[in-house]
Amino acid sequence: MNVNQSDKSPVCIGLLGLGNVGTGFVESIRANHDLSEKLIIKKILVKDLTKSRSLAIPDGILTSNISDIIEDSDIDIVVEVLGGEFPAAEYIEQAFMAGKHVVTANKEVVAKHGSELARTSHEHNRQFLFEASVGGGVPVINALVRDLAANQITSIKAIINGTTNYILTQMTDYSSGFSDALTQAQQLGYAEPDPANDIEGIDSTYKVAIMASLAFSGSILVDSIYREGITKLDARDFRYAHELGYSIKLLAIARRITGEVEIRVHPTLIPEAHPLAKVDGVFNAVYIEGDLVGPLLLQGRGAGPEPTSSALLSDVLAIAAAPSGDHAQLNPVLGQQPIAIRPIEQLLSGYYLRMQVLDEPGVLHKIASVFANLDISIASVIQKESDEIIGTAEIVVTTHESLEADIQVALKTLIQQDCVNNIGACIRIDL
Amino acid sequence: MNVNQSDKSPVCIGLLGLGNVGTGFVESIRANHDLSEKLIIKKILVKDLTKSRSLAIPDGILTSNISDIIEDSDIDIVVEVLGGEFPAAEYIEQAFMAGKHVVTANKEVVAKHGSELARTSHEHNRQFLFEASVGGGVPVINALVRDLAANQITSIKAIINGTTNYILTQMTDYSSGFSDALTQAQQLGYAEPDPANDIEGIDSTYKVAIMASLAFSGSILVDSIYREGITKLDARDFRYAHELGYSIKLLAIARRITGEVEIRVHPTLIPEAHPLAKVDGVFNAVYIEGDLVGPLLLQGRGAGPEPTSSALLSDVLAIAAAPSGDHAQLNPVLGQQPIAIRPIEQLLSGYYLRMQVLDEPGVLHKIASVFANLDISIASVIQKESDEIIGTAEIVVTTHESLEADIQVALKTLIQQDCVNNIGACIRIDL
Repeated sequence: MNVNQSDKSPVCIGLLGLGNVGTGFVESIRANHDLSEKLIIKKILVKDLTKSRSLAIPDGILTSNISDIIEDSDIDIVVEVLGGEFPAAEYIEQAFMAGKHVVTANKEVVAKHGSELARTSHEHNRQFLFEASVGGGVPVINALVRDLAANQITSIKAIINGTTNYILTQMTDYSSGFSDALTQAQQLGYAEPDPANDIEGIDSTYKVAIMASLAFSGSILVDSIYREGITKLDARDFRYAHELGYSIKLLAIARRITGEVEIRVHPTLIPEAHPLAKVDGVFNAVYIEGDLVGPLLLQGRGAGPEPTSSALLSDVLAIAAAPSGDHAQLNPVLGQQPIAIRPIEQLLSGYYLRMQVLDEPGVLHKIASVFANLDISIASVIQKESDEIIGTAEIVVTTHESLEADIQVALKTLIQQDCVNNIGACIRIDL
Repeated sequence: MNVNQSDKSPVCIGLLGLGNVGTGFVESIRANHDLSEKLIIKKILVKDLTKSRSLAIPDGILTSNISDIIEDSDIDIVVEVLGGEFPAAEYIEQAFMAGKHVVTANKEVVAKHGSELARTSHEHNRQFLFEASVGGGVPVINALVRDLAANQITSIKAIINGTTNYILTQMTDYSSGFSDALTQAQQLGYAEPDPANDIEGIDSTYKVAIMASLAFSGSILVDSIYREGITKLDARDFRYAHELGYSIKLLAIARRITGEVEIRVHPTLIPEAHPLAKVDGVFNAVYIEGDLVGPLLLQGRGAGPEPTSSALLSDVLAIAAAPSGDHAQLNPVLGQQPIAIRPIEQLLSGYYLRMQVLDEPGVLHKIASVFANLDISIASVIQKESDEIIGTAEIVVTTHESLEADIQVALKTLIQQDCVNNIGACIRIDL
């Protein structure tokens, strides 16, 4: 006998959504004897009652009417896996008002409405848990909320979107072009038919907003997060980066800098010795630095029905195990005060620039003078392939730590030089 | 304002021990304004009241009498960082009986007395938390207890002792001999003057016993854990392992195998592509596989006053935040039933064998026949250095998955061969 095995009656769940994740959630409970005894799925909200499903659902469970769940007083916990902003956000609010706890995997809702929903849950003394919204089965939220509670978090660097990491890994390992790698990701089901949310970095902004909100105790406006996707990356840049000792990853970064927070999502060159450089394929990883703990790396499967169900169920079981009393105290603290976000122009970073120039004497001197005039310190210059027929060469410049605003001026000045045909890439380096 | 900021009065702590970790704990609270407001260290148990200390402690806080803490009804939580089995285990029990919660970093006490202490804490409706006992600041316990609560854990592989990992990293990177690497670790303060607990793998057995107890819901007798330290490793083995594509790490392994649990601590060859192969220096890492989450890697600083304080304080804050009510429900489930441990002879593993043989025709044939007679499948045979003066050669054999009992017979048979001078190493391979 476990000493704290509970004699509580089973917990009733209302599940919103029966797509991939919802189906995985039901299957995960059914496959586990202990969970089946503790948790009962009383109702499931679906759009279409008549749709054929891979899963046999007993009569009376499916409903297309949200009120059947909100008004069912047997239901203790609403598990929301609808995805998308609306109606999910409204349903969650209704659930709190009806006295139910809510567990969600919905990063968009938590990122955009987390603060107000946290307030509502608090007013109704209910729990609002969202471990599954960031990093799938990787316990990122609990790490920030609970395990590092005594730390001042100084920075978070994360590979938090499996689709883009799969694509970038293909581009690294097989020198694939972006569209080939995307097509392959789509064929394997790692990328959506409309992949914009992933490849443009939007999904990562939701997740970094949630992490930063918890780490820095305030609310973050998603639209205020600087964002660049991976669509402009070229296979050459992965080759050149490797020659320079770097990997290219789509990083979500949030750092505390003297009263402000820097928060951004963009492709980044990271040294190959950094733990994040070795996180490949669909894996997610979050690298957190705290004043006491130092660096902490959490790595695992960031998506998929089973890892997501692992996180959803850990939240459900935490609610089920909690003593009665002041439930709201167990909520992650999603701050209400907006956090001041540092403009990207003030970023200090290394930079990797690839440009096509005329292959003639004096070109390097002209380019170097552009950087020198702006006090930008060059770390390396490498001449890559040259094209004798059209008389051009490709050069790659990396800088020491420089101010983003200066780099932007440098780019504008460079492109105006007669000797510069085009600038093929400008990628930040995490030094 | 944070929506769930608490108006509770500060929590009073009685600290047992003011060594490195205890001092770090006090300093961590003092350095953090929020923590200083929430937590008051009312009493500190020390052996010697007159000892000069790096930390200024106000009058009336230090005591050398445990009763001053146990009988102080203001004290809510006892934080135990004495280390060692006794009197720590007795003090913890007394604390529960006096109605106090206990937070401890003491792996030996949790490994040897965890089940009975969990029962006592349960009887007194108190919390018994020990995140700091495994992995320092890496949230291993909470991952197993809470984040992976819905998972069937299938295996845990861990680098869980920073001292030995530092030594092995030195032996890998600089081809240091074991004693040189140990001396260096001692000079840097990474190894104790008496290093036996670390280098013999004893510390790792405590930690893997705690992890396995939580993952597999039962009690583990520490003495029943198969254990080999790192003292017999030779610099050559690191070189040869690298040539074969492996790193050598001291792994603590616990796996569930059809109703039994395999649990062992020994040097292990792991493929260089495995995430654990890249965990270097004093870092700890735990690689957990669950049926839902898949593989999950947690990596960070496994020792030191600050990371340990990070974990202690997360437990203290969790107790402080918990609603009043049934505290015992929040305890990690340290099972009471003994877990059946599979004898090491039944282990299936790859093996790396290094032996000195006579450098003459037919030797390889004789050696191969020993393996063949036992149905042990050889994966590779490499002849390494030979010594022409004494007429010997060194060969390294690796096997495919084999039964430990068969390998033991093979070793005995090999050493009886005239052509085998000695067997220099037999190291298990995690295939």
